[in-house]
Amino acid sequence: MKAEVISIGTELLLGEITDLNAAYLASQLPLLGLDLHFISTVGDNRQRLIETLNRSWQRSDIIITTGGLGPTEDDITREAIADFFGEPISIDQSLVAQFKELFRHFNMDMPESNIKQASIIPSCEVIPNPRGTAPGWWVEKNGKFIIAMPGPPGEMQQMWTNVVAPKIQEKFCDAIIYSSTLKTFGLSEAKLGEITRDFLLAKNPTVGIYAKPDGIHLRVAAKAGSATDAKMLVENTVAELRKLVGEYVWGTDTDTLEGMVANLFKNKKLSLSTMEVGTGGILANNITNFSDSLTFYKCGIVLSRSELGKEFGIDENVISQYGPVSTEAAKEMASVVRRQYGTSVGVGLIGIMETGEPEYKMGTIIIGIDDGKHCHALKRIYPGTRLQIKQRAAVAALFELRKIMQ
Amino acid sequence: MKAEVISIGTELLLGEITDLNAAYLASQLPLLGLDLHFISTVGDNRQRLIETLNRSWQRSDIIITTGGLGPTEDDITREAIADFFGEPISIDQSLVAQFKELFRHFNMDMPESNIKQASIIPSCEVIPNPRGTAPGWWVEKNGKFIIAMPGPPGEMQQMWTNVVAPKIQEKFCDAIIYSSTLKTFGLSEAKLGEITRDFLLAKNPTVGIYAKPDGIHLRVAAKAGSATDAKMLVENTVAELRKLVGEYVWGTDTDTLEGMVANLFKNKKLSLSTMEVGTGGILANNITNFSDSLTFYKCGIVLSRSELGKEFGIDENVISQYGPVSTEAAKEMASVVRRQYGTSVGVGLIGIMETGEPEYKMGTIIIGIDDGKHCHALKRIYPGTRLQIKQRAAVAALFELRKIMQ
Repeated sequence: MKAEVISIGTELLLGEITDLNAAYLASQLPLLGLDLHFISTVGDNRQRLIETLNRSWQRSDIIITTGGLGPTEDDITREAIADFFGEPISIDQSLVAQFKELFRHFNMDMPESNIKQASIIPSCEVIPNPRGTAPGWWVEKNGKFIIAMPGPPGEMQQMWTNVVAPKIQEKFCDAIIYSSTLKTFGLSEAKLGEITRDFLLAKNPTVGIYAKPDGIHLRVAAKAGSATDAKMLVENTVAELRKLVGEYVWGTDTDTLEGMVANLFKNKKLSLSTMEVGTGGILANNITNFSDSLTFYKCGIVLSRSELGKEFGIDENVISQYGPVSTEAAKEMASVVRRQYGTSVGVGLIGIMETGEPEYKMGTIIIGIDDGKHCHALKRIYPGTRLQIKQRAAVAALFELRKIMQ
Repeated sequence: MKAEVISIGTELLLGEITDLNAAYLASQLPLLGLDLHFISTVGDNRQRLIETLNRSWQRSDIIITTGGLGPTEDDITREAIADFFGEPISIDQSLVAQFKELFRHFNMDMPESNIKQASIIPSCEVIPNPRGTAPGWWVEKNGKFIIAMPGPPGEMQQMWTNVVAPKIQEKFCDAIIYSSTLKTFGLSEAKLGEITRDFLLAKNPTVGIYAKPDGIHLRVAAKAGSATDAKMLVENTVAELRKLVGEYVWGTDTDTLEGMVANLFKNKKLSLSTMEVGTGGILANNITNFSDSLTFYKCGIVLSRSELGKEFGIDENVISQYGPVSTEAAKEMASVVRRQYGTSVGVGLIGIMETGEPEYKMGTIIIGIDDGKHCHALKRIYPGTRLQIKQRAAVAALFELRKIMQ
């Protein structure tokens, strides 16, 4: 089956918004055995969209559109599809009632303009959108399909995962590609590339290296006649890669570092508190990105300077003897929050995010971890901008925490 | 001048990575009066890249490539350009020395594979990359150009802003499009669309509405024969939009909410502390994304539950009388951190991020602000996922803080 993606929105052509949806769909289609042949971007222009639909309809089996389902004048996807098929548009009153209920939940009146989003045509099947007021359309004619989904990536992905992908799979699935990702931290992209060089040159499975905010990812992808064969090819390569760089691997596929740490703490029924100096709460924020994290993560202290630490019980002698940017200071921070807030584990994180402190190198990160038995500490220097260093500080702290807690 | 963008990397075709660079360049080219006619995506395949370069060279004046300048085997942009022009590749030893110095700074040995990144050809001019080991190439032949830049968006944008864009502007600038963005918070996209309907339908300037993590943006763009005329068109429309929705506008163009707040605090020589319950430090983290924020932002307390607040001086009677999720509790938090840590202003932020608390609606956000004279508070309920609600809580708190401090 030939698939085609059309991203709709003038904001994409002006570069005002990044097309996350085409990339997402590109990653999902091979899993369903669909070949993505074209990605087109069209502005909010009804005539040009109709022309694009016409060209796509001639050369492809499945056309997936994203965007243009909003409530404003420039949202023209529904109108263009209706015109393309020569079908009349009507308003679905049950959808209008759903929208009104949604607005009521948030104590708001529904603006009149939202009614437009309840438009339907005779051949369309409505795809529910639990996250907003832009339902999708599934249109099937002569064995070909147009599937229209909303532009906001959260709404589109939800709709894709829960309705569209399962429905496509049910209709025509001859899945061929299987992939798995190993997530590493602690080696540079170049170093990892050197170690895994032979795998990077191989054809099936292919291995790709990608630098991501949470470390370097190794993506292994294999093609085979059956899903089982493809999976086996991938698993063999993954096992060999683990032999080479296993100590740097912290997770796979949909794993997140905060999720790995959260599960360790929840399974062992442990609790956590943190104190950060200079990193502005990035560690607290990352930990609490994981749903349910507040059950084990009790308390975080975010300080601009270590001098303020004495208010929270930090021993000033440690700071004056070893300096505020020292492994001893990070350990003291970890121990103090652990003791003070009665948690099983305490973490101290110190980061130098500004260039204005000549005695310390910008990018210096010190992590202290007190697990009640031992007090660990390590120091790193990371390159990058302020935001990159902040993010790496949190990733490094979570990576170490995971290693120690295992 | 006709421009063309080529995004290079198999990871883009597999959807493993999102093409942020094409969107960024699409937004930048009109400002230089360049027309972007094509965006192509090519995998890490030398032959296919040479073919693409060949086609682009025939139809366009400026070809801008991103990606494929890394140290690994699959990075083939340099090789493809060299092949396309039939020029030999050599290693620039001064670049190698720079790389070694960079690695030394981070106490690391330079892997051998990085040497490949010091490749040059006779017609290329090297574009420095202060953020990494992938220098760019500027190649000029017969009045046409190939400009090769690295794939990581931070490195590419830095190179674009500091070297490539100024150089293009110097060579051939007949700038025509001018644009400006108004950033709003507090109105829904549909509501804002209704109020500004007449502007959304207008042709020059055009006005677009975009939902962003920090609120809803209105982008005004005008075309004119001269930059002055285009700017005047935009400014007139911006002034009229401000009359309609000015109270919701918090900034323009490159403004960030944390930057607006930081500048207010720094100009007035004030200091800030915060206490968060349930929002996991997102406010502390957002404030400290702004460089230099640690000079005014003293201290943040991040708690999982308000019961822990008593450790930090919260009056338990307030909590038991009004409840932990109340405007009174948020005000008490604001006042306590302000007093306790001796700052001019204190903020208390309460958020319900989990569905497991039936007595409170998920998405409930309460903000308390004590500026020393008054203690303000407000309550909102936001839709969305955990991460969206966290982000909106921080944006709402920063928006209120800015309003009160002005």
